[in-house]
Amino acid sequence: MIDDSNNIILPEPTLRRLPWYLAYIDILKANGVETVSSTQISKAISVDSSQIAKDLSFLNIKGKTRIGYEVNTLSNVLSHFLGFKEIHNAFIVGVGSLGAALIHDTGLSNYGLNIIAGFDINPDIIGKKICDVPIFNIDEMQHYQQKLNASIGILAVPANQAQDAADTMAASGLKAIWNFTPYRIKVAEGIVMSNTSIYAHLALIYNRLRATT
Amino acid sequence: MIDDSNNIILPEPTLRRLPWYLAYIDILKANGVETVSSTQISKAISVDSSQIAKDLSFLNIKGKTRIGYEVNTLSNVLSHFLGFKEIHNAFIVGVGSLGAALIHDTGLSNYGLNIIAGFDINPDIIGKKICDVPIFNIDEMQHYQQKLNASIGILAVPANQAQDAADTMAASGLKAIWNFTPYRIKVAEGIVMSNTSIYAHLALIYNRLRATT
Repeated sequence: MIDDSNNIILPEPTLRRLPWYLAYIDILKANGVETVSSTQISKAISVDSSQIAKDLSFLNIKGKTRIGYEVNTLSNVLSHFLGFKEIHNAFIVGVGSLGAALIHDTGLSNYGLNIIAGFDINPDIIGKKICDVPIFNIDEMQHYQQKLNASIGILAVPANQAQDAADTMAASGLKAIWNFTPYRIKVAEGIVMSNTSIYAHLALIYNRLRATT
Repeated sequence: MIDDSNNIILPEPTLRRLPWYLAYIDILKANGVETVSSTQISKAISVDSSQIAKDLSFLNIKGKTRIGYEVNTLSNVLSHFLGFKEIHNAFIVGVGSLGAALIHDTGLSNYGLNIIAGFDINPDIIGKKICDVPIFNIDEMQHYQQKLNASIGILAVPANQAQDAADTMAASGLKAIWNFTPYRIKVAEGIVMSNTSIYAHLALIYNRLRATT
């Protein structure tokens, strides 16, 4: 069932929607539902059913006419396809308030993220552990990367240290940077970048709230 | 300096970029830099300078020819404009791993978010406090909303409880829902919605990593 189609580069909007489908399908699965059509998914989560069929066509799975997709199979194929069933080792860089919070969020491990070490410049936390994750000096990142071979670096330093920390991460051999800072960092081509702009999402909420009151 | 222009509905892409400008400008400010041009911002964060000028034109602030913007003024106007200087009271609904992590992240308060209560269904944590934030039974949300008048509800429950919890939040009188679950919830018109799809961002990283290796 799992094949080379896993290696294609998916459009970002499709990658945004697929986890919605998976979340809905996993609810059906937990409720013992056996089949689901794209029309049903469409009604539940308000995405056009032709869009859903198109998104799911990237997966190597076919629905049956008038029956739809097998829920168990679809859940399996989707979570494998999204990479949630593999283990991806990650460093977290910046173990302040947000960084420590992300280490505490054990839910990420259900989605294939395995945080194996933290890095900081604060001598008060270097050498300690948070939820069993050891915290090292940021200067030693390359050393630990050679030993631990993480693929993803989670960036959670203050904005004014974001670019420097990202440069260190790239130089240490991390292949992807997940940026939680509000700073727009620049990386060399070939480094995968994903921004989770929580402050921008807050700004959006504040702006819309103000406009409605 | 702050005026009615605060009430306009900004396009989402502009709201995504403005916090990048602010993060960069605050670094200049901390370094004692007094003026900045859109060309400079453009070089630092790789956004087209005409786009920056256009985004900043929503603010009631003018740059000077050949000098640019005053850094202090721009920082002030931007952070007010984005709502980061106001206090916005929020409930957090679902105080499991992620919810508790968000309460621990004191950084959010620097961006105007004040988490005043948490809600859960787990009797082990109802009645307790996390970082001084009291945790109540989710059934009592309306009661506490009448007393505390929060405007924002942060949704961090398991996906299969997301829609029900969102319905409770809307019924209790919360005006905005910040959805951290992977579930695509539906809300009545008039409720502000913002999705922070951390699992979709992970799926993006996994997909791109696979394609490059």
